Amino acid sequence: MDVRGYIEEHAGDFSAALSEWLAIPSISADPARAGDVRRSAEWISGHLRSAGFPVVEIWDPPAPRDDAPGGSGPAARGLPTVFAEWPAARRDAPAVLIYGHHDVQPAEPLHEWEADPFRPQRRGDQLFGRGASDDKGQVLFHALAVAACVNGEPGAAPPVTLKVLIEGEEEIGSPHFAGLLCERRERLGCDVIVVSDTTMWAADVPSMCTGMRGLADAQVSCYGPQVDLHSGSFGGAVPNPLHALAALLAGLHDDRGRVTLPGFYDRVQPLTATERELLARLPFDEAEWLATAGGSRAAGGEEGYSTLERVWARPTAEINGLWGGHTGPGPKTIVPREAHAKVSFRLVAEQEPAEVQRGLREYVAANAPPGIRAEVEFSGPGVRPCSSPAGSPAVRAARGAMERAFGREVLFTREGGSGPEADLADILGAPLVFLAVGLDSDAIHAPNERVDISRLLKGAEAAAYLWHDLAGYKPAELAAAPAGQ
Amino acid sequence: MDVRGYIEEHAGDFSAALSEWLAIPSISADPARAGDVRRSAEWISGHLRSAGFPVVEIWDPPAPRDDAPGGSGPAARGLPTVFAEWPAARRDAPAVLIYGHHDVQPAEPLHEWEADPFRPQRRGDQLFGRGASDDKGQVLFHALAVAACVNGEPGAAPPVTLKVLIEGEEEIGSPHFAGLLCERRERLGCDVIVVSDTTMWAADVPSMCTGMRGLADAQVSCYGPQVDLHSGSFGGAVPNPLHALAALLAGLHDDRGRVTLPGFYDRVQPLTATERELLARLPFDEAEWLATAGGSRAAGGEEGYSTLERVWARPTAEINGLWGGHTGPGPKTIVPREAHAKVSFRLVAEQEPAEVQRGLREYVAANAPPGIRAEVEFSGPGVRPCSSPAGSPAVRAARGAMERAFGREVLFTREGGSGPEADLADILGAPLVFLAVGLDSDAIHAPNERVDISRLLKGAEAAAYLWHDLAGYKPAELAAAPAGQ
Repeated sequence: MDVRGYIEEHAGDFSAALSEWLAIPSISADPARAGDVRRSAEWISGHLRSAGFPVVEIWDPPAPRDDAPGGSGPAARGLPTVFAEWPAARRDAPAVLIYGHHDVQPAEPLHEWEADPFRPQRRGDQLFGRGASDDKGQVLFHALAVAACVNGEPGAAPPVTLKVLIEGEEEIGSPHFAGLLCERRERLGCDVIVVSDTTMWAADVPSMCTGMRGLADAQVSCYGPQVDLHSGSFGGAVPNPLHALAALLAGLHDDRGRVTLPGFYDRVQPLTATERELLARLPFDEAEWLATAGGSRAAGGEEGYSTLERVWARPTAEINGLWGGHTGPGPKTIVPREAHAKVSFRLVAEQEPAEVQRGLREYVAANAPPGIRAEVEFSGPGVRPCSSPAGSPAVRAARGAMERAFGREVLFTREGGSGPEADLADILGAPLVFLAVGLDSDAIHAPNERVDISRLLKGAEAAAYLWHDLAGYKPAELAAAPAGQ
Repeated sequence: MDVRGYIEEHAGDFSAALSEWLAIPSISADPARAGDVRRSAEWISGHLRSAGFPVVEIWDPPAPRDDAPGGSGPAARGLPTVFAEWPAARRDAPAVLIYGHHDVQPAEPLHEWEADPFRPQRRGDQLFGRGASDDKGQVLFHALAVAACVNGEPGAAPPVTLKVLIEGEEEIGSPHFAGLLCERRERLGCDVIVVSDTTMWAADVPSMCTGMRGLADAQVSCYGPQVDLHSGSFGGAVPNPLHALAALLAGLHDDRGRVTLPGFYDRVQPLTATERELLARLPFDEAEWLATAGGSRAAGGEEGYSTLERVWARPTAEINGLWGGHTGPGPKTIVPREAHAKVSFRLVAEQEPAEVQRGLREYVAANAPPGIRAEVEFSGPGVRPCSSPAGSPAVRAARGAMERAFGREVLFTREGGSGPEADLADILGAPLVFLAVGLDSDAIHAPNERVDISRLLKGAEAAAYLWHDLAGYKPAELAAAPAGQ
């Protein structure tokens, strides 16, 4: 089978289909666009059916879990997810679940777009439109990939069982996603999860993500006197909640930049020499990166780690907001009654948000000064970190497929942010593979989002190779622990 | 001369006169009451003239100094000050300047008053009305005192030269006062300054204030990236302005509760053993005091000092306000671009606000972390602390006069707050004596302000004794350094 030949032959159809899908403004954040999100789900359902998937369903998410953050927000009813399944020719072949999403970010500010974000325009190899890279283009290449696998033959079946799960609420924080995974766990059962919603290092530096950080966030409050006091009458003899809070926050890091919560590093999987070496091989231009960081200086991070290791592979504590006392113009000499801070922790495998939350409670209880009542509240259960170790059999296979498609060595990156991927891995109990061809320069979430059609075709090619390669594994082999690190 | 007999004989007239003056709502904070403040100045001018003062003038304050805080506020034009002078019988007698004020606090909340705040009511020995204790009652007893000195005889003169300065803007922060003192320095020249605008420890524990703390305040700001950054993408590798600010603020105190600014304690006059002993003799009920401090615990202050020493006699650093980043509901995972804090320092003699400001600048410059731009701004030049040492000849004389009037030992207190007294002492170059009979329980600044007429009469008696006693000093003796400590 000539995968590349098939894909090149169908490149025009692929581009036309993507343009059609991009024209549907499936903005999950805008309640007025709920109908468009449904149209988008219907469009991709029809497309998958045409590609040959015998089972295609639209699922309305269940009610949110009570403990889910944002669960009672505007999208409480839930936007539709698309599920498709195509059983493998061989019954004992592995099953692969492909994850992506069909909802898109709002397009504002509209005046910064060179053309209508929902009237896609092709310029050379680039297709412009909201969702071109994040994530419709990357979902759509899977339909092309499976068609290439079966060479468009009616009655044929792919070498592995393919299940496709296309969420409609990723851009609003996946409020119903974990609930849906639990409810449909049987149908979604798989041996590998392939996520196509991340970015590569650069167009000429193909790469795969090997982990995303998790998140635990909290509000810390300090209470002192029942009323604001005159600092002339009382200052110096009664504790000041702002001082107490400043000291608690300043104490979150030691002088080596390490987080001081009890047990914080207990479950952190140290970077292996191989992982550090792989990250170090990325052509990282720190000056350029800092320019995108609003003129920041790389400073103050954890000692002994590079900048990329700090943002991708090490856990952090950040103060996100702080307030208390007099914040208006001019002086006001008070000992204020209370002070508050928003803090969050980025977590790496195998840290558990619940344990970090417990550690924060212990830290605050142990360090609040006499006379100050300190409280910690959490906005939700947090997000677990996820990892996709470079040495796992599925990642090795995917890397081989990517290298074959791109004709280059594939490097490894990570993501510093947090997404629903940990829920996928944990609830479905399968290893993650990040097979994606987006770029930060695709202007994801920004005006003039775009994608190179040829890059999406490489993604389709890599996926087709991967399905063939995975067919050579027994399911148990794919679940095995990573080796060679 | 029977001072007490004279005063008791005129008690009824005194109470009637005070009621008349209290009926004038001389609220300096309310621009609509400017006419009433003038009427108040005219009333006391007439009263002083009737009491025998040959010179009585109403002064309109000069334009504010450019560097004065609040100088360009609503009262930029200035409210009238009353000046009166009565030369001593003997030309070489000392000159005493009496300071008080005729403006009053607003009366709100009006519904908490049992009667109209500007229709004074006598109930038993107590006279109710705004300004009864702060400060009209305490100004007025001086007119009675000088009448008692001269026994009401026409053509007589007091034993010391008396100058009376009655400000009209004390309750709004004395914005023009230093300017007026500079402008009229010659006319105001004196050997002792007697301030009648503080409180005693208790009705049955007469006391004198021996110092007021000064004040320096500032806003400290930390700036990092030019925009708020995603904490997933950048957190852990770029400095966070909120962390930087929290650490700067937490570092303002060491673990013994001492302020860490460079040179902060260099000019602090240590409490003498006598001063500490005198403060320790006050019948201080810490539990009761803490109840007034909104349920605070006495904690976190400077090691090695009692609660009263901490609030009266030791310098402090307080955070009065703090803000930055996300302060709304829910989490927002950012590294914010900036953070701000309002801080203030209470100062004790001989600390200089300008030096403390310089110390803060140095501290912030030395401790701001790499990658953070830290700025310090001051709202004005600050307020110098003032002291009236218990061992100074004038204070010894005043204590003797108070003890004779009250028939009890007079103890020593301090005030933790800040007022215009340091300007009086510094600009006029004379020692301060706090001769006052107010009480915290007079409901100063609160609804149902009141005063015991008999306590005001004791004040008049003490003042009359003091003028006689001071006549026995040579001016140079009064300027001498305190002895016996």
